[in-house]
Amino acid sequence: MRLVRLRAPGGLGNLDLVEEDPPQPGPGEVLVRIRACALNMRDDFAVQGKMPLADGRVPLSDGAGEVIALGDGVDALRPGDSVVSVFYPWWLGGDMTPSTRRDIPGESFDGFASEYVCMPAHAFTRAPAGYTHVEAASLTCTGVTAWRGLIVCGKVKPGDAVLVLGSGSVSLFALQFAKAAGARVIATSSDEQKLERLKRLGADAVINYKSVPDWGRKAKDLTGGRGVDHVIEVGGPATLAQSIVACRTGGHIALVGVLTGFAAEVSIPALFSNQIRISGISIGSRADQEDMIRAIESNRLKPVIDRHFPLQDIATAFAHYESRKHFGKVCLDV
Amino acid sequence: MRLVRLRAPGGLGNLDLVEEDPPQPGPGEVLVRIRACALNMRDDFAVQGKMPLADGRVPLSDGAGEVIALGDGVDALRPGDSVVSVFYPWWLGGDMTPSTRRDIPGESFDGFASEYVCMPAHAFTRAPAGYTHVEAASLTCTGVTAWRGLIVCGKVKPGDAVLVLGSGSVSLFALQFAKAAGARVIATSSDEQKLERLKRLGADAVINYKSVPDWGRKAKDLTGGRGVDHVIEVGGPATLAQSIVACRTGGHIALVGVLTGFAAEVSIPALFSNQIRISGISIGSRADQEDMIRAIESNRLKPVIDRHFPLQDIATAFAHYESRKHFGKVCLDV
Amino acid sequence: MRLVRLRAPGGLGNLDLVEEDPPQPGPGEVLVRIRACALNMRDDFAVQGKMPLADGRVPLSDGAGEVIALGDGVDALRPGDSVVSVFYPWWLGGDMTPSTRRDIPGESFDGFASEYVCMPAHAFTRAPAGYTHVEAASLTCTGVTAWRGLIVCGKVKPGDAVLVLGSGSVSLFALQFAKAAGARVIATSSDEQKLERLKRLGADAVINYKSVPDWGRKAKDLTGGRGVDHVIEVGGPATLAQSIVACRTGGHIALVGVLTGFAAEVSIPALFSNQIRISGISIGSRADQEDMIRAIESNRLKPVIDRHFPLQDIATAFAHYESRKHFGKVCLDV
Amino acid sequence: MRLVRLRAPGGLGNLDLVEEDPPQPGPGEVLVRIRACALNMRDDFAVQGKMPLADGRVPLSDGAGEVIALGDGVDALRPGDSVVSVFYPWWLGGDMTPSTRRDIPGESFDGFASEYVCMPAHAFTRAPAGYTHVEAASLTCTGVTAWRGLIVCGKVKPGDAVLVLGSGSVSLFALQFAKAAGARVIATSSDEQKLERLKRLGADAVINYKSVPDWGRKAKDLTGGRGVDHVIEVGGPATLAQSIVACRTGGHIALVGVLTGFAAEVSIPALFSNQIRISGISIGSRADQEDMIRAIESNRLKPVIDRHFPLQDIATAFAHYESRKHFGKVCLDV
Repeated sequence: MRLVRLRAPGGLGNLDLVEEDPPQPGPGEVLVRIRACALNMRDDFAVQGKMPLADGRVPLSDGAGEVIALGDGVDALRPGDSVVSVFYPWWLGGDMTPSTRRDIPGESFDGFASEYVCMPAHAFTRAPAGYTHVEAASLTCTGVTAWRGLIVCGKVKPGDAVLVLGSGSVSLFALQFAKAAGARVIATSSDEQKLERLKRLGADAVINYKSVPDWGRKAKDLTGGRGVDHVIEVGGPATLAQSIVACRTGGHIALVGVLTGFAAEVSIPALFSNQIRISGISIGSRADQEDMIRAIESNRLKPVIDRHFPLQDIATAFAHYESRKHFGKVCLDV
Repeated sequence: MRLVRLRAPGGLGNLDLVEEDPPQPGPGEVLVRIRACALNMRDDFAVQGKMPLADGRVPLSDGAGEVIALGDGVDALRPGDSVVSVFYPWWLGGDMTPSTRRDIPGESFDGFASEYVCMPAHAFTRAPAGYTHVEAASLTCTGVTAWRGLIVCGKVKPGDAVLVLGSGSVSLFALQFAKAAGARVIATSSDEQKLERLKRLGADAVINYKSVPDWGRKAKDLTGGRGVDHVIEVGGPATLAQSIVACRTGGHIALVGVLTGFAAEVSIPALFSNQIRISGISIGSRADQEDMIRAIESNRLKPVIDRHFPLQDIATAFAHYESRKHFGKVCLDV
Repeated sequence: MRLVRLRAPGGLGNLDLVEEDPPQPGPGEVLVRIRACALNMRDDFAVQGKMPLADGRVPLSDGAGEVIALGDGVDALRPGDSVVSVFYPWWLGGDMTPSTRRDIPGESFDGFASEYVCMPAHAFTRAPAGYTHVEAASLTCTGVTAWRGLIVCGKVKPGDAVLVLGSGSVSLFALQFAKAAGARVIATSSDEQKLERLKRLGADAVINYKSVPDWGRKAKDLTGGRGVDHVIEVGGPATLAQSIVACRTGGHIALVGVLTGFAAEVSIPALFSNQIRISGISIGSRADQEDMIRAIESNRLKPVIDRHFPLQDIATAFAHYESRKHFGKVCLDV
Repeated sequence: MRLVRLRAPGGLGNLDLVEEDPPQPGPGEVLVRIRACALNMRDDFAVQGKMPLADGRVPLSDGAGEVIALGDGVDALRPGDSVVSVFYPWWLGGDMTPSTRRDIPGESFDGFASEYVCMPAHAFTRAPAGYTHVEAASLTCTGVTAWRGLIVCGKVKPGDAVLVLGSGSVSLFALQFAKAAGARVIATSSDEQKLERLKRLGADAVINYKSVPDWGRKAKDLTGGRGVDHVIEVGGPATLAQSIVACRTGGHIALVGVLTGFAAEVSIPALFSNQIRISGISIGSRADQEDMIRAIESNRLKPVIDRHFPLQDIATAFAHYESRKHFGKVCLDV
């Protein structure tokens, strides 16, 4: 089988396409023929060498494909099943604990840039009915993050106002899940074409944050002065202050990302006088993924796919990802 | 002004249309020109004399109309505002307490079968934008009950399966709210025409409970054997056992009504071995009503109205209500 | 090693003490030298043949002892650790699902009436520091049930009033956990000596339900007419109606047991007009057990142990259990 | 009657003791003979002129005393009742909204530095049984803040670890409530004598944050490396980073105060990778205060009172408050 290994210390030039024997499933494991992978910011950090990894690590945390064979004692899956990987294979449900967060594919063990993988059966869930492998692979990291931030921790309900920032994949999923949940969505971007696309995806109102620097206030105005119920906050230091401004009394901010940096200055009185709730979100559990897939199926949602590349062009795919010109997931066909 | 008073001990023949001077708003009160009322089972009990009421009580808990004048210190409403009444005027938000449940219009004080009423401003919320007064009046009792059962206590989320029983107004609202929230709806009725109408309202699957006596099992089968996440249980003794059968492990039953009687036998082991949650629902708070109206507006929902009658035909309207042939709210134009 | 096997179709006379070779731990498993077991109503059903079991099943769901050896890949436990078994070994945390409830020791696989057992490491948690093995064994079934009913589902808080029924082990644990959580406890019994013991365990008020048949009303009176916040309902048909009477508006009933039968008649209007919440409780998850043990340690709680018997006297122990004269857990030394 | 008015623009020298006629209760109001007030940081801001106030405002948000007379329609209180004021008189229960937060005594209307006040009956709750007026007055602001942060938003449970910072009144109440709830408390101070007093109040472990600058790490170590479940974060910029370090995966930070400044820099990845929850807390609702009082009564808690001053020495009392040498509430006898 063909697979990609990342030579230490990382860098796009250190992604090697190699040939190895396929693995055999042990007890409790499944052998999956991976058909597609999706790229995430975390993978980008990893392949660029910004995260210390074992030499030869197979990258990518998100993969989808077909079950080929079962190890002993596996009864939840059958050969032929279409499956998609789980970001935290040991976080089955409930709250995360130190022990359930321990392993992440593409990081502490080999990931999905490989034609075949053997993993515990609970490292996968079934894929949504009718999904291509590329569509399924797009869900693991960014889909589940948006789901947990908005649905599990945010408990969004019909009529709530949801603010999504920019057109990254978490924001696109959040927009779609918010609309499915009967909420009103306000979306931001600095690019008029992307604002158009966000509207076509269902955004009820859009704000160009370049031309409206106090876009938090604008978002609040768009709710009749009440403020939004939820922000899916992917930006970090450059956006958090405006996100707080946008919130209603008692509003909820799902803290998801660091697109603009790591350390943000916040106004403590703004948080407590408005009784803002903040939830730090790190993807979600296997049960969250299953719930999300059920929602995707009953609402016939489809992810936004930007482009796919063949496995051997993984470095080109990451270069495209890093250009920030994409709208939707950048994927690999395996 | 014209209004209806119910002579003790009640009965449709004891509904008198009378003429009186309109009231004047005291401090904190609003004078509202009522334009429409809606009928509920509770009102039916009241006018039939099954509930002890003061002699001369003005019936009906659900009314909508236009604000005419404000008493001192009212700033949340303005003359000309379209408003709809609140079932528990003193239950402003949060959990119900003995003190917040104390007064109910049409029961412990005069209700809305009247051209003009004076009440504390918080006895009303604004009506949904674009709603007729009849549509607004339909919301108070059955709309808020469905909202609280499904959204507030049930915390329904996209992809959940919701079972609604029959075609009473609570069930119709629950169906609409469940669809707005991205859920899958299974609906029951004994009438094929009503099943057709339930499908047109958005039900994903329907069951004729006459031809399928074990409809709880059938509902579970329709979820692939997993069971439904929520039941809006309006039936009582004749339905509760099947509702429990329909539930998934950890499923939620919003206990709302007693269409088939008051005392139900339940299997305790069925409840605890499946970790079923039951919430007794008695309408909801003023804040619940405001949230519901926001959801109605952003999802452009319209209630199902069966027929309206002029105020003076209130007895005919109740006779129609008691015939159980209606589908949707029976209303009065005032 | 010595162990007990139950010949089909059950009955105290079919409990055989046998000698077998000890098992060896496979990957992910631990070998535990069981030192104590506790008896529960469920075990009593099982050994009496009221529950269909495989021939030769080793009974008992609750065991405690010492880790002797580890299989490959076990890092959460070490030889010498004192451990206590988990009722649902696959329900690690979060909400129960059909797949996490699948296996129960002493029922679908061999239980703890055995000197040595091999099980997956997650079938145990560490025991509370300073506990004897008998004390630890008492926790699994009844301790976790009380914890989940009162703390996880009930979310009891300081100042809440908690009603516990009788002196079964779930009620005793609930009393202790409620006091640790700063709640006020009202306890019932028909036996004045047991009422005395309940007071010594911390009950703030006691009711003899024989001399006060409307003990639900009495419990409500004891809260100044407000009603209790929580009932740990272990009785079923003979108690549920009074438990509902005892509740405050919005009160919570943890439905736990069936001491008086399986089918209970409930008044639907009593439930919804008072907005009662009911939670069906079936033990709890591994994470619940870990949380409970942390609470036990910081509050220095000790379970009430009635008597212990040697393993070979298991039939005598069950006979004692069935006599209903015990106060606290009936245990076995292994 | 005697009362204190604050001349604009504030400053301790602008606190005037004046003589006026006592007010009369209007409909829905009560006349209360105030017997004690407590000082808070917010009052200190107000009297120092750091908050724009109407000229002549009567300061102080926290007062307690005795009901003297009732206006029309008041049935929840009776003359002779001991009562304590509510910080947000219109926030009766549930979540705060812009309309329920509108008025604060001592800020947008006259406060409690007065022998008599007339206010709506819901601006008070009954005081805990057995409390002096000074003890009761200490509860409103800091007691309810600690209660809401720890119990309402934090949902603390037995066995949780709670970190409280310093010896301000919110921290002292949080310590007491946490112990009443069965939690383990870690407390910090820079003063060894205060650490001693914190231990005597029930702290299980203490840290001198002067000698242990990485006290967040130390607190985590004191939980066996797991991290604390809750931080009552009163410090702001100088403490928030260490508070985050102290948390367990999924830990909760109640953001309460700004003792060290207003703008804090936070590490976004520290928040999301550890799934930290933050709740901005601004006192609490009337219902929260009633629940707290119930907890105080059943757990026989007493607040820590530092000193009391007569009403005419209000400026001296504030000077003492500003010296930061107090341990417990600084109060006035009226």
